[in-house]
Amino acid sequence: MLTSSSAIRSASHACRWFAAVLLAAAAGCSPEPDASPVVATPPPAAADPLPSWNDGAAKTSITAFVTRVTTQNGPDFVPPAERIAVFDNDGTLWGEQPVYVQLKFTLDRVRALAPEHPGWRDTEPFKSVLAGDVEAALASGEKGVAEMLAVTHAGNTTDEFAAIVSDWMAAARHPRFGRPYTEVVYQPMLELLAYLRANGFKTFIVSGGGVEFMRPWAQAVYGIPPEQVVGSRAKLEYEVRDGVPRINRLAAIDLVDDKAGKPVGIQQQIGRRPIAAFGNSDGDFEMLEWTTSGRGPRLGVIVHHTDSVREWAYDRDSHVGKLSHALDEAPGRGWVVVDMKADWNVVHTFEGQHP
Amino acid sequence: MLTSSSAIRSASHACRWFAAVLLAAAAGCSPEPDASPVVATPPPAAADPLPSWNDGAAKTSITAFVTRVTTQNGPDFVPPAERIAVFDNDGTLWGEQPVYVQLKFTLDRVRALAPEHPGWRDTEPFKSVLAGDVEAALASGEKGVAEMLAVTHAGNTTDEFAAIVSDWMAAARHPRFGRPYTEVVYQPMLELLAYLRANGFKTFIVSGGGVEFMRPWAQAVYGIPPEQVVGSRAKLEYEVRDGVPRINRLAAIDLVDDKAGKPVGIQQQIGRRPIAAFGNSDGDFEMLEWTTSGRGPRLGVIVHHTDSVREWAYDRDSHVGKLSHALDEAPGRGWVVVDMKADWNVVHTFEGQHP
Repeated sequence: MLTSSSAIRSASHACRWFAAVLLAAAAGCSPEPDASPVVATPPPAAADPLPSWNDGAAKTSITAFVTRVTTQNGPDFVPPAERIAVFDNDGTLWGEQPVYVQLKFTLDRVRALAPEHPGWRDTEPFKSVLAGDVEAALASGEKGVAEMLAVTHAGNTTDEFAAIVSDWMAAARHPRFGRPYTEVVYQPMLELLAYLRANGFKTFIVSGGGVEFMRPWAQAVYGIPPEQVVGSRAKLEYEVRDGVPRINRLAAIDLVDDKAGKPVGIQQQIGRRPIAAFGNSDGDFEMLEWTTSGRGPRLGVIVHHTDSVREWAYDRDSHVGKLSHALDEAPGRGWVVVDMKADWNVVHTFEGQHP
Repeated sequence: MLTSSSAIRSASHACRWFAAVLLAAAAGCSPEPDASPVVATPPPAAADPLPSWNDGAAKTSITAFVTRVTTQNGPDFVPPAERIAVFDNDGTLWGEQPVYVQLKFTLDRVRALAPEHPGWRDTEPFKSVLAGDVEAALASGEKGVAEMLAVTHAGNTTDEFAAIVSDWMAAARHPRFGRPYTEVVYQPMLELLAYLRANGFKTFIVSGGGVEFMRPWAQAVYGIPPEQVVGSRAKLEYEVRDGVPRINRLAAIDLVDDKAGKPVGIQQQIGRRPIAAFGNSDGDFEMLEWTTSGRGPRLGVIVHHTDSVREWAYDRDSHVGKLSHALDEAPGRGWVVVDMKADWNVVHTFEGQHP
């Protein structure tokens, strides 16, 4: 196994981007939430496959697209095998405020591993994390975050890492909602996933987050199996140690599945261009561009976080899920912009319930 | 677009392995076929899902495994979502003799591209290919083959490459059988793919061959969609050129999906350990090892090419699909060895038909 020090030394330049994202996520530039969640509207009649969506342009655009591509003998019919829909995760399927969930995981893992690393008490950024001063820890910049990623995301096997993620997910709670992170998902998007699948679509996650961080729970939460999760990934190595085969996670990044990396991840893993893409930030721009520039009917959707009461309101000035360029380009490209406040009558499934 | 010369210069060390495989494939060490195909046995009653398999230990091992994992409330029941089966392609699903199909494609592409590259008339290995002396071309070794791969497999987009492959597949014919390569597939394996899918399995290709070389036809031939094809792959780059988004294939290899690369490719793309694996050569050893060392019921199968009449007979001494270590290990690991001659009453679907 990699020792933590060798893991740190191995933390390569390739980690830098991911580190930068996590760092920005914690830089404190996100707007504060206004209040606790309000009571949810009761779900309408069962006939509506998207009951948490208010009637309006966004909902109509989505359902009209699905009708077009599924109408047999219609001019825009798409065979089921080509009905590929891709979803960003952070900010599109689940929440990304006040910081990315994977950054919370990283900090918690540093604390959990600290007893095995007495040297961390005197070494930044670990020293500050252990002292409870996350801001100071993050002041170490990309290099510091890359070091934290290396020691928390590498040096174990894929099976071990999956177990660590599952254990953490079961125990961790969202700081505002007091719920497991796997419950801080968007009810309208769960309905959308189910609606698309009921119409013959195959649904994929295409996220900048770590692929092995999402796979352990994506099936249970989203109904998306591991093989339909695309994400940033560490380099892997197959090894037989003491007669037991294992796959080691190395301290180097193999793919940063964000921005221009998303079409690459899609091509590598899915092998064909999707016909529908759903995102919420500039990190999804290229995925939306690639998806909607193909021939035939195409759907591009941006979830715009406009609800400061039930969730958060943020876009151009946010370091988490910054949405600026894609928002400017949306009208000209025919992308649907979902106004979370106006278009969703429920944001979280748990609204109106006690945690 | 990459010029051929820059593509050649970029042909990196990472290409070497794949080059070595293709090189070995053409080194002339394969046994010669004995005769043309014999007439196929008529298919038995429809009740048998594997009519091209003769009754015997191999067939029984496969059907017994499927019964075990699909028996509700049985001790070895496996939920459908975990019924992942992986298949090597060359020599397992389709033929790999007298040379790998992808090497034939590479040589044909060199000839097709030659008019755009007058310098090739004086430069090895292209000079020899164009003079019809493949053996001399391959005498240039791994470096020469890597150069041919770079100019034939890179410098275009993924869409362009898919069209090139499709056009070539439609026109090319197997030198012995006079059929398109997509017909030189094993009928018993087609039945096995269908049988597994009918029993809730998700079937994947995990091949040392190029992933983009297989995807254009795998759905039509095997019923396996692009997203379920894992293979060796070139590095990719997303670019918007003249306002048009494209994915460029670069002259560098991103994954060699062979030997220890197969479990890595499986983990990257499928994200969980298969419960059944099918291969035919030492290149499949690690895939079989990884698959069958998991907990619970596991199935490992090796197709042994023993039929010099209907196909080819080869194993330890073949440079194409060498099978030695895996054959030695099979009994101790409980892997099923399929004796093609004895276990298959039909090898190719077209047997008994005129080409």
